[in-house]
Amino acid sequence: MIPGFRVGTASAGLRASGEPDLAVLFADHPCVAAGVFTTNRVKAAPVLLTQERMLNPIRALVCNSCNANACTGPQGRRDARTTAAHAAGLLGIPEESVLVASTGVIGVLLPMDGILTGLDEACGLGGTWEQAARAIMTTDTVPKLATARVGDFTLTGIAKGSGMIHPNMATMLGFLVINAIIPQPELQAALKEAVDRSFHQVTVDGDTSTNDMVVLLAGGREFLPGPLRDEFRETLTEVCARLARAIARDGEGATRLVEVRVEGAGSPGEARQAARVVAGSSLVKTAIYGADPNWGRILAALGCSGAEFRPEDVEIRIGTVVVCREGVPVDFDEDEARQQMLGPEVRLFAHLGAGEACSTAWGCDLTERYVEINGSYRT
Amino acid sequence: MIPGFRVGTASAGLRASGEPDLAVLFADHPCVAAGVFTTNRVKAAPVLLTQERMLNPIRALVCNSCNANACTGPQGRRDARTTAAHAAGLLGIPEESVLVASTGVIGVLLPMDGILTGLDEACGLGGTWEQAARAIMTTDTVPKLATARVGDFTLTGIAKGSGMIHPNMATMLGFLVINAIIPQPELQAALKEAVDRSFHQVTVDGDTSTNDMVVLLAGGREFLPGPLRDEFRETLTEVCARLARAIARDGEGATRLVEVRVEGAGSPGEARQAARVVAGSSLVKTAIYGADPNWGRILAALGCSGAEFRPEDVEIRIGTVVVCREGVPVDFDEDEARQQMLGPEVRLFAHLGAGEACSTAWGCDLTERYVEINGSYRT
Repeated sequence: MIPGFRVGTASAGLRASGEPDLAVLFADHPCVAAGVFTTNRVKAAPVLLTQERMLNPIRALVCNSCNANACTGPQGRRDARTTAAHAAGLLGIPEESVLVASTGVIGVLLPMDGILTGLDEACGLGGTWEQAARAIMTTDTVPKLATARVGDFTLTGIAKGSGMIHPNMATMLGFLVINAIIPQPELQAALKEAVDRSFHQVTVDGDTSTNDMVVLLAGGREFLPGPLRDEFRETLTEVCARLARAIARDGEGATRLVEVRVEGAGSPGEARQAARVVAGSSLVKTAIYGADPNWGRILAALGCSGAEFRPEDVEIRIGTVVVCREGVPVDFDEDEARQQMLGPEVRLFAHLGAGEACSTAWGCDLTERYVEINGSYRT
Repeated sequence: MIPGFRVGTASAGLRASGEPDLAVLFADHPCVAAGVFTTNRVKAAPVLLTQERMLNPIRALVCNSCNANACTGPQGRRDARTTAAHAAGLLGIPEESVLVASTGVIGVLLPMDGILTGLDEACGLGGTWEQAARAIMTTDTVPKLATARVGDFTLTGIAKGSGMIHPNMATMLGFLVINAIIPQPELQAALKEAVDRSFHQVTVDGDTSTNDMVVLLAGGREFLPGPLRDEFRETLTEVCARLARAIARDGEGATRLVEVRVEGAGSPGEARQAARVVAGSSLVKTAIYGADPNWGRILAALGCSGAEFRPEDVEIRIGTVVVCREGVPVDFDEDEARQQMLGPEVRLFAHLGAGEACSTAWGCDLTERYVEINGSYRT
């Protein structure tokens, strides 16, 4: 799918179904790496190890699902190192050039026998990106991948995360590669910007996890030519946004993707925050599930987002239906508004009348199924 | 129930069942008032009017349920004033001595005919505090009232709010009275402290509403004697905490009250925040619903609360069962832990090992029923 990179998957015995739960991404050439990591004070062992190695030339990344290797103490940190070392041995590359990632249940040691046996198979690198996207799924229902061209080069990404998605970087994994060399500071800046405008604008349930990371590897025979750098940044944001939307759409128990667009905010930060708070409001999410054009909940969410505005300057639309203007209800066609909430994608729009800044956030509806999934995840 | 105060209720035709939806609290003597109000930028008309009048000598408070009179523009503000004026006329007191409060659906004008007719009856003041507590209910399933003695005086409070409860002051109404005079600055300070330690530590679904307020009226023939002032502050906090717990227990769709105790935090603010974030985590709430002792979610919630701590210093208990020590799992009796999650009250405890501060927060489990209630509230 992308020249210069290969992938492999295997079962490490972590997934009850016996399907693959382990993925290896391998680069033929040493890569420059960039990363954005969870801000949770409790960071899983693989997050700590990967952060340590970010400035090394990177050749591979190993990711397992179904076990987070978080809250596992010194043994967990040893297990993360052992995983990387074993893969390095099999792939014939330096141990320090291997990154690791995990997602799944917290507080349980990795079953290392299964991991090492699985690696023996996965390091054969006979898999596809689609298989890798499947192997890293937890409660996801569909694999998430996106690819795009940047000149003659290819940018490919996979992601997982359906519940517990929230700024900043809740249980969300994203791995992206491009088969061109890009200097680290530039790569890191581009990833940071792309993540701020995509993954960080996705919210499913407001919780931030111990394991999240987005890693971007850039490596090949050639440097990305200067004239393509702007296109690269835009394409990276677009690919990340496609993955982010896929994550929101696949929110645990979700039946609808919700896109919240905020315009007229006083600052970009306020725009982002306001959009996220609306997308994350339990009351907005349940109203969308019920296809109830209860715009008061949207206005109330905007009001507690911290964004500065005067209620009498606000306009709100559900889809194309204006439901509130100058902070008070307008007569609107309830059936039409309801109709626009019944599709697989619901668009909410708010203009705050306080400035020029705008932003978009993505979320999903909140359903009984979310409760079912999370009421019995571990057992 | 408390000498010097009388109450009345009536139906203003707002509640589909025809049961009372309007309450009037009346003081025989002018009262000193203290209040804590929603921090939402979008404030309902009654909130704005009541805030304006807080330093007046207060004789009455009128509250309706089922309609928030929020996002109703200039007409909504006129309606709030008309409500107060009509009650004042019936009660023979100055218009400026009447406070108003509303709760319910947003963006719909108050049906003033019903309100005024209802006031004619409610201002007869032939009701009980329990009836008043019922009249202000929305999706609450039980009325909430608490009373206590302070020397020879009585402190009585009623509250409502079951969904949309969150710091600061989500759709939550609390009205308290004491039949003694207390100077305003002292009364306000006491209420602020009590609310910070009670209502502000309750979270149901993370949303903050346009209408919340807690108002405390103090008035009678005598000043509260100096030696009783400390006892008053403690009793006020205790009464508020009883009402707050009742609100959490009655969270929309809730089957269990959750009490989260955080000790060993670096500062009181961090302790409060950490306790609230755990109580408000959707993943913790669903785990409690499923009686799943998934303590990793508790640790992850602590980690994203903003409280400073080292994961390796943390101890977590579910009820009396230690499940995590020094940031890693301990062997614990899962059946016993599950048993302690099956009762009507679940206690979670975390020691952060980072200082001396402690705090308690209250919440409830998250159930399919919450989604059902909020997916079809308006329609």
